[in-house]
Amino acid sequence: MSGTELLRVDERDVAAWDDQADVVVVGYGCAGVCTALEARAAGGDVLVLERSGGPGGTSINSGGFLYCGGGTALQRALGYDDSVENMYAYMMAACGPEPDAALIQAYCEGSVAHFDWILEKGVPYKESFFAGAHEPFHSDDGLVYSGSEFAWPFNEIATPAPRGHAPQTIQDKGALLMNKLIAAAVAAGVRTAFGTRVESLVQAGDGRVVGAIAHTVEGRKRIRARKGLVLTAGGFIYNEDMLSRYAPLLKQCRYKVGTETDDGSGIRLGLAVGGEAIRMETGDISLPVFPPNDLRFGICLSEQGQRFINEDVYFGRIGEYALMHQAGRVFLLVDDEHFGRPENFPIEIAAAGETVEEVEAELGMPRGALVNTVAVYNEYAARGEDPLFHKGADWLAPIATPPFGVIDLSTESFVYTAFTLGGLWIDPQARVRGGGGDPIPGLYAAGRTTSGVAKQGYSSGMSLGDGSFFGRAAGRHAMTSRT
Amino acid sequence: MSGTELLRVDERDVAAWDDQADVVVVGYGCAGVCTALEARAAGGDVLVLERSGGPGGTSINSGGFLYCGGGTALQRALGYDDSVENMYAYMMAACGPEPDAALIQAYCEGSVAHFDWILEKGVPYKESFFAGAHEPFHSDDGLVYSGSEFAWPFNEIATPAPRGHAPQTIQDKGALLMNKLIAAAVAAGVRTAFGTRVESLVQAGDGRVVGAIAHTVEGRKRIRARKGLVLTAGGFIYNEDMLSRYAPLLKQCRYKVGTETDDGSGIRLGLAVGGEAIRMETGDISLPVFPPNDLRFGICLSEQGQRFINEDVYFGRIGEYALMHQAGRVFLLVDDEHFGRPENFPIEIAAAGETVEEVEAELGMPRGALVNTVAVYNEYAARGEDPLFHKGADWLAPIATPPFGVIDLSTESFVYTAFTLGGLWIDPQARVRGGGGDPIPGLYAAGRTTSGVAKQGYSSGMSLGDGSFFGRAAGRHAMTSRT
Repeated sequence: MSGTELLRVDERDVAAWDDQADVVVVGYGCAGVCTALEARAAGGDVLVLERSGGPGGTSINSGGFLYCGGGTALQRALGYDDSVENMYAYMMAACGPEPDAALIQAYCEGSVAHFDWILEKGVPYKESFFAGAHEPFHSDDGLVYSGSEFAWPFNEIATPAPRGHAPQTIQDKGALLMNKLIAAAVAAGVRTAFGTRVESLVQAGDGRVVGAIAHTVEGRKRIRARKGLVLTAGGFIYNEDMLSRYAPLLKQCRYKVGTETDDGSGIRLGLAVGGEAIRMETGDISLPVFPPNDLRFGICLSEQGQRFINEDVYFGRIGEYALMHQAGRVFLLVDDEHFGRPENFPIEIAAAGETVEEVEAELGMPRGALVNTVAVYNEYAARGEDPLFHKGADWLAPIATPPFGVIDLSTESFVYTAFTLGGLWIDPQARVRGGGGDPIPGLYAAGRTTSGVAKQGYSSGMSLGDGSFFGRAAGRHAMTSRT
Repeated sequence: MSGTELLRVDERDVAAWDDQADVVVVGYGCAGVCTALEARAAGGDVLVLERSGGPGGTSINSGGFLYCGGGTALQRALGYDDSVENMYAYMMAACGPEPDAALIQAYCEGSVAHFDWILEKGVPYKESFFAGAHEPFHSDDGLVYSGSEFAWPFNEIATPAPRGHAPQTIQDKGALLMNKLIAAAVAAGVRTAFGTRVESLVQAGDGRVVGAIAHTVEGRKRIRARKGLVLTAGGFIYNEDMLSRYAPLLKQCRYKVGTETDDGSGIRLGLAVGGEAIRMETGDISLPVFPPNDLRFGICLSEQGQRFINEDVYFGRIGEYALMHQAGRVFLLVDDEHFGRPENFPIEIAAAGETVEEVEAELGMPRGALVNTVAVYNEYAARGEDPLFHKGADWLAPIATPPFGVIDLSTESFVYTAFTLGGLWIDPQARVRGGGGDPIPGLYAAGRTTSGVAKQGYSSGMSLGDGSFFGRAAGRHAMTSRT
């Protein structure tokens, strides 16, 4: 049996339809509910098909951040200057090699209005700034730096502005976000079918996607999409075979951010009708050794005892560099003055000693390698400088107070958290693009079924951010279809 | 117009065929001619469709190496021990993260017989070993180390054996190889159609690929493939749009190894009928600063003045690490005793001085960074050791004889040569695999239209090697089809 015949059915082979809607949405996470809300708002009959028994997807268990900027209501209320151009400059520099300028431009231009729309749906945000780094795990503050905006080289490219927008709750931020959106969808009359797993897309002779075949407890159902079908079915971090062939490095990350339905089914459906899956090697790879933030006074080391990054960047950037450029074999050296227990995950101490020489020997590093690294670092750190990797002065101090400890940050001993960033190629209207670049008529995608704004170089909130943003774009555009 | 309708046509929409053959081969490089020869040997009527005006593709202008081993006739004649297991161990370690074990197993098991087959086709190999590193540009020697077999860590994983098999000619080795194979195909009665560009594949309702639609000077032709259609149409190094969305780092390489027809058309045809394109970010990235080999006594430096690799590895591994892990900003520091002009490409001197301190300052590196790197290196090199990166003792000596020079090996100033390694997912019979892993009936691929044995971690000869090897597998398997 062919791998394709499961996923694509010719319209001529569909005798009749069992159900239909203007817009059919596959998957009911954040991208799916935003798609549904917007298509419904445009007057569409909307049907969401969800494999699980209820709504939420990975989003409902997520951190709940939305990466928004350009001068959102919350940014302005807290006195932070930002602009479309400034946000665009950061994202183009941060979001991996050659990110999609058109996607990022649309995302930045629409970000203020998008956050207003989220507010309208009833999601609450506290007008307070979280001064810690990156993740307000233990606060309900509304705004936070959730990327590397304040760190080199980005602080030289764009004016730093916090863009992580977190719903007002200490725990379960993702649930708060999603429950508000789902409630809005219920109120708006969005139809849903749970326990409904899409097996195939139905394609007409001209390439147009016109529906789906779904497996349900009542048997197979043929569901027509009159105006558009939107794939918002998550990524593939839970598909080991797909990871092997596309993104094997991500398999080394112990903690998968996702649900079991992040098995790549949405991507494969899109491929089967002529879509392209791009940047499939990319992922968010976080190394959450912080907080406590004082650990940033330490230095990240390769197994050769060399530094490889400014330690004040977003821990997703540290994780990316550690896994992708240092083969996941890295350490953090910190002195007694700045040592603290990581708050979120247990650690292993790889070495400890009263002198750097002792630590070097205990790590099995060649004599002089680590000692020289620390000597050069300390000489400049004493002056508040880091000419090699440009860590900010706030986190610079000589590593001088014994005892010295080394936290093992290798993939073998520490928790790396990962989800996939690769997926279907879309345009700013969330239309799935075929091999020639032209959209496949009738087919849309958003969220981690797509390669979105972050092509590597992730900042927290970009996944719910682009999923919700381009989901809405899909819902709107599908409703403009004349079919 | 949809991007897909150009590439895939339903069989029901093909009223009649203009031509047909048992096996239709798309592209006439090394993979194509080997496919054709083998299908013809099995009694098939074989038709090769080639866009260009003549045969050869990229292969005819290539270095002509075949990566063969396991105890080939040439290896044995020259007294080199090798085995299937040994070759397999090297390739599994060298060929990137999580290479395809089944492909590599088949490739290694069949390698001795494959080289015998190449000999039978009349390709001459001189029974001599090239003692220089990697590329006998100026000799006609038959056997050479064309990878990193003798270098760390591979020399600890498998017994080093040279596996680069080079046709006996000083220049135009690729032409010698290809002309012999093409002559054999002509003699065997392989049919060819030049100036014939395949626009679409024809797919039956059950997913089977049954033919192609091609553009010719005489208009569009519908060509039936009774037993199989084989895509051997090259990679995508000449398609800037595909590089942007799949492999943007490769765009930084100044020299593209390929022809203009390496525009990804074969990959896109496979995608359009349900194939998957995997490891699309990968590429061979060579940094051909050697020969002269004495430059290996130098040390490769990051822009922080740190070493990042053992300098005695294959220059494809140096290029890969430089581009992918050091953002293409690297240098080579060498002392006067070991300096020599690179033979193949011009260089720029980034700095020179009577002391390392001078060089460090001229490079704008922080005081102490490079000095410490050199101090640690020299201390161990004097004893023939490199505990940090494990360069072999043959290339270890203190960097001590002034003046010291630094060659700029950044992508901006030096030549990086690149071709793509990502492509269609195939099984060991060269069948194109669909999303579920099952083969798409009737469809095969080989060479750089596929992701082959090297998923990153290239050694010279692996591309002609797997193209020819899996091309033959495709030709044989297609002829077993009962259709």
